[in-house]
Amino acid sequence: MAGERARAKAIVSHGSLEDGQWRMEDVTLRPLREGELLVDIIASGVCHTDILFGSLKEGPSVIYPSIKGHEGSGYVKAVGSAVTVAQKGDPVLLSFSSCGSCHACADQVPSYCTSFNQLNFLGSKNFDLASSTASSGKPSISGQFFGQSSFANTTIVSQKSVVNANNLFKNRQELELFAPLGCGIQTGAGTIINVAQAGAKDAVVVLGLGGVGLSAIMAAKLLGCQKIIGIDKVSSRLSLAKEIGATHVVNTLELDGSSLVDKVREATDGLGATVTMDTTGVKALTMQGIEFTRNHGKIIQVGSNGLEDLADFPMLLFMVSGKQFLGAVEGGATPSKFIPQLIQWYHEGRFPIDKLIKRFKADEWEKAIHEMHEGETIKPILLW
Amino acid sequence: MAGERARAKAIVSHGSLEDGQWRMEDVTLRPLREGELLVDIIASGVCHTDILFGSLKEGPSVIYPSIKGHEGSGYVKAVGSAVTVAQKGDPVLLSFSSCGSCHACADQVPSYCTSFNQLNFLGSKNFDLASSTASSGKPSISGQFFGQSSFANTTIVSQKSVVNANNLFKNRQELELFAPLGCGIQTGAGTIINVAQAGAKDAVVVLGLGGVGLSAIMAAKLLGCQKIIGIDKVSSRLSLAKEIGATHVVNTLELDGSSLVDKVREATDGLGATVTMDTTGVKALTMQGIEFTRNHGKIIQVGSNGLEDLADFPMLLFMVSGKQFLGAVEGGATPSKFIPQLIQWYHEGRFPIDKLIKRFKADEWEKAIHEMHEGETIKPILLW
Repeated sequence: MAGERARAKAIVSHGSLEDGQWRMEDVTLRPLREGELLVDIIASGVCHTDILFGSLKEGPSVIYPSIKGHEGSGYVKAVGSAVTVAQKGDPVLLSFSSCGSCHACADQVPSYCTSFNQLNFLGSKNFDLASSTASSGKPSISGQFFGQSSFANTTIVSQKSVVNANNLFKNRQELELFAPLGCGIQTGAGTIINVAQAGAKDAVVVLGLGGVGLSAIMAAKLLGCQKIIGIDKVSSRLSLAKEIGATHVVNTLELDGSSLVDKVREATDGLGATVTMDTTGVKALTMQGIEFTRNHGKIIQVGSNGLEDLADFPMLLFMVSGKQFLGAVEGGATPSKFIPQLIQWYHEGRFPIDKLIKRFKADEWEKAIHEMHEGETIKPILLW
Repeated sequence: MAGERARAKAIVSHGSLEDGQWRMEDVTLRPLREGELLVDIIASGVCHTDILFGSLKEGPSVIYPSIKGHEGSGYVKAVGSAVTVAQKGDPVLLSFSSCGSCHACADQVPSYCTSFNQLNFLGSKNFDLASSTASSGKPSISGQFFGQSSFANTTIVSQKSVVNANNLFKNRQELELFAPLGCGIQTGAGTIINVAQAGAKDAVVVLGLGGVGLSAIMAAKLLGCQKIIGIDKVSSRLSLAKEIGATHVVNTLELDGSSLVDKVREATDGLGATVTMDTTGVKALTMQGIEFTRNHGKIIQVGSNGLEDLADFPMLLFMVSGKQFLGAVEGGATPSKFIPQLIQWYHEGRFPIDKLIKRFKADEWEKAIHEMHEGETIKPILLW
């Protein structure tokens, strides 16, 4: 990789998305380090976390210019000397990064890696604008978002983010389709399967039916959960939830004087949920979730609206009801094991992720984000 | 049981303990109902929950006059027509009550019974003062505290509170010793065994070393937990914790400028606890517990200071660290299974509850409570 630098096309975040500071541009890439791969991205899922981090205006995670994207799939173009996970030409799916050696990684819960923040959010200067006269010096654009920065047609990836996709897919369209398995879909399904460890007796409530929430609905269906209740304010998402497994849906804009707590109790023989998964991070919803979860049930928080929100539920009532409030990231999954499992279920027709996605040319990224915000598209995939 | 009413001697709470409103008095008992037993109590453990409920001055659980006591042992004197758990003459250990039919009871977690409050705290008018001229009418003194009100030498017990002790003990002294298994000891040990499901790899921190906390230390030792850290402000309790299994102790009055968080990290190779059990209900301690628990660790709340306290931890940080905040009561145990298990361990020399207790004549109840408050006595047992 010495000599001429690799070039790529990428969505560069020069500042906040809402200020119009994201632009598709030509970039150059610094040489690979020993634990890294150069990957030609064919598809990247768009996730609210890209938008969240690319909209920040203050705080320690404000890193501009930078390249987001953390649900990539593609082919390996080159590997660093210490890479063992894949070789040149291999198809790969990209997920989050982890250190591989801390207590959480050793315990097979790498999403709670003690270096998670550093490895996934703080970035590394990997890119330069192709037009920059300083491109032969120290790179100026941060990459390594979730170890990958896959909003680019070629990118530098940490090998800890790589799942080798050899023998996992049938054709290029499937490799595109599987891009979002690395974050949103894994998070939704993993939360129900690994964190809640739900089963046939469970009454599962999912608050918020984006890609994460709908993946949770599919997982609850797959596990044969007795009641599967989807809650959202977008009617098309509620319809889709029913199509893929929800036994009940509640539109928060159509409560007709009932509370959400009433609605969930009605759907669960008066008992409440055994598992409540909150993807919204809207505190008022989380707190209602705690209320409508039955004694000894689990409330799992997988979405957040920022640093300020405090849980502030009454400790005594929580204690005597034996409820459990669980934080969870990435579905508590080990991607190299969980993603192949999800793909197997997809091939068996039991995990229809194709119903969640819509393909866009990478140049249409603004349209993709717009449709995701509107709720019209669940999970946009950008094709490079 | 028709005809002359049974008589007993009991500690009657006419009002708050701190106002001097508890008195040892002669009482009469109403006739048994079909699911009840008349039990001659030989010993009753004293627990902070007796003091808490017998010190209330306002709220829905203020019930005076009443008889507290919820860790009893004794012999059955008579049984109602629907009683199957024991017969006249059987030795029994008394624990909390539950309905036996709700979802939590069906799931073998009766301490989260949806009728727990009603069955354990709201009472039933079972007693009268022997001196009362109204004693042939409607009884005036509430019993059925935790289904038993065992601060009496004879009491009316719900059969749901009864563990038949046939073949479980060697002599009367053991039956006395086992009285506190029904609440405090079961709570401490059960939290570590059933709720935390701790094992050899765990680093367990116990905040507060009363009967509950020290029982947790013994359970962690029994399970072979790698680190067992006891925290209290009474040095004699810290010494006892070390004697029965703590690998480290921290005196909160001797932090020497360090924080509790520092101390726990020092004792755990910088990593923090995997399991933190808070018996104190002191919110500042609980919140420090959340902080010093490592990623993906469990914080289990088993003590509370009242209705007002809100958890108020930051939701985002909690989520990304994958921590788990668990409410727990009575160690998530089914008494009829768990108490015999604890007794077996005691007989094997692996669960030395004799180190926690001190016997008092029932007439010395004030001294017993005083010594418990001072920290000098861990678990007083009143002998009737």
